[in-house]
Amino acid sequence: MGWAIAIHGGAGAILESLTDSHRAAVEEALPKLTEVGAAMLKAGACALDVVEQATVALEECELFQAGRGSVLSAAGTHELEASIMDGLTGSAGAACGLRTVRNPVCLARQILERTTHVFIAGRGAEDLAKAWDLERVPNEWFTTDRRLNQLRRHLATPERSRPYPETVGAVACDMEGRVAAATSTGGTTGKLPGRIGDAPLINAGTWADERVAVSCTGIGENFVRAGTARMVAARVELLGESIEQASVACVQSMPPESGGLIAVDCHGNVSLPFTSQGMYRGWETQAGTRGIGIGAI
Amino acid sequence: MGWAIAIHGGAGAILESLTDSHRAAVEEALPKLTEVGAAMLKAGACALDVVEQATVALEECELFQAGRGSVLSAAGTHELEASIMDGLTGSAGAACGLRTVRNPVCLARQILERTTHVFIAGRGAEDLAKAWDLERVPNEWFTTDRRLNQLRRHLATPERSRPYPETVGAVACDMEGRVAAATSTGGTTGKLPGRIGDAPLINAGTWADERVAVSCTGIGENFVRAGTARMVAARVELLGESIEQASVACVQSMPPESGGLIAVDCHGNVSLPFTSQGMYRGWETQAGTRGIGIGAI
Repeated sequence: MGWAIAIHGGAGAILESLTDSHRAAVEEALPKLTEVGAAMLKAGACALDVVEQATVALEECELFQAGRGSVLSAAGTHELEASIMDGLTGSAGAACGLRTVRNPVCLARQILERTTHVFIAGRGAEDLAKAWDLERVPNEWFTTDRRLNQLRRHLATPERSRPYPETVGAVACDMEGRVAAATSTGGTTGKLPGRIGDAPLINAGTWADERVAVSCTGIGENFVRAGTARMVAARVELLGESIEQASVACVQSMPPESGGLIAVDCHGNVSLPFTSQGMYRGWETQAGTRGIGIGAI
Repeated sequence: MGWAIAIHGGAGAILESLTDSHRAAVEEALPKLTEVGAAMLKAGACALDVVEQATVALEECELFQAGRGSVLSAAGTHELEASIMDGLTGSAGAACGLRTVRNPVCLARQILERTTHVFIAGRGAEDLAKAWDLERVPNEWFTTDRRLNQLRRHLATPERSRPYPETVGAVACDMEGRVAAATSTGGTTGKLPGRIGDAPLINAGTWADERVAVSCTGIGENFVRAGTARMVAARVELLGESIEQASVACVQSMPPESGGLIAVDCHGNVSLPFTSQGMYRGWETQAGTRGIGIGAI
């Protein structure tokens, strides 16, 4: 059936605070961001390169919550995290507690390529980024006025604070039927310093094998406690379910409004279910389907 | 069928370097360490308390690689990590990058009990341990002569370095059929600073749900890339396999000599498969089976 790409820009209670101007900006950005990966796939790129570059584009876009535009921790700082997994080889890379790495997903990719480890945290990860000449920026570079205002509201009335869309991610199937997944985030507004969510966790927020690739978004702890990304693949492998059946079963088995996920299989089928108010998303396939979405269709 | 406990003290190429005196010490320790949990279960304790206290006993034992007696990173320091999961509620806690927390599994338990998060790293985790009055020790307290010698040999000839047994853990089923799992480790000899293994990762090294509980040990990255602990439970849930069938299938699907796992189901059945040379282990059940092992039976 050919290549396919899906991206997400986070899931959560996104509709109630969505202004007309912000909606317009998102609706303009999502097709362009989807096209980053689609253009690479049309040109024959491998799935792993595609999900890395699609996630870089999402990290660079201030509208979404990863890289620049990330939310702030309770301490008023940014701690970024990301992961990537190659379905072809089963290799994976991940990093967390990043303060100066401009594109966390690129560090995750280099950890996949250059080390025998999968997951490296904090100072150790920062030192690798420096040694490998990845671009670094001051922590304040990630801050935007929108996220500062969110933190101020959160600290003033935490009991009224609703989860903001928390993550970006990409999944792709290339012309050869190889799949890969990547996820990147700035975490949760007002999180405790050091908190690690599902985004850098292989099995929880990110998974890819020879059959399927999955990237999750939402209330991270619920995805960790369910092993959501791994379970989508387990249902396809062990039960023979379709990517749509497996994805829907996994998000529906979680607590209400946990969030959503994007998934692709090695035949180019795409699934994008969510149980939250909305999920910023875009997709395109060689078979001719394409679209973007924010709330329910 | 009643209560059951299983513990492990790590899996790997443990036989070739096992001296007679070390074997004697291990064979004396394993029954005592198993009895810590068995005595609690006989007295009606819940599975979550049992796996925490059984893991504390393993952390305190210098013979095994967690807490005091942990291996050293390439930088000559200790970075400890642990996780715990309660099958009854599906709640979980985990911490990594710990330098001063005497019993990492106790911090994981408190993260489970006291926060909305699952996983907290480094300084943030240390600050919580301080705020919650958990016992803290200087980093050097974890060091033993045996581990210093291992690091020296590793740094001198890393290409000849074989993986040492890497982890401790416990799984239990209590009188009510509730199960829980915990895992704790000092990581891998000569690891890069900041490297996170499978031990603190729910889904990779630790899992518990209403049916089964699993704790893994071995080459951590292989367990992360397979989602081993989660997949044992997935096979029981989705395929209706026994705990023994599911556990054996999962360890055998990984690269040779990856390590092993201990698992228990809600009926008190125990499984302890491994593909490495050996796995330090002990088990006891209300049904009357008990034993310890190092190499293949």
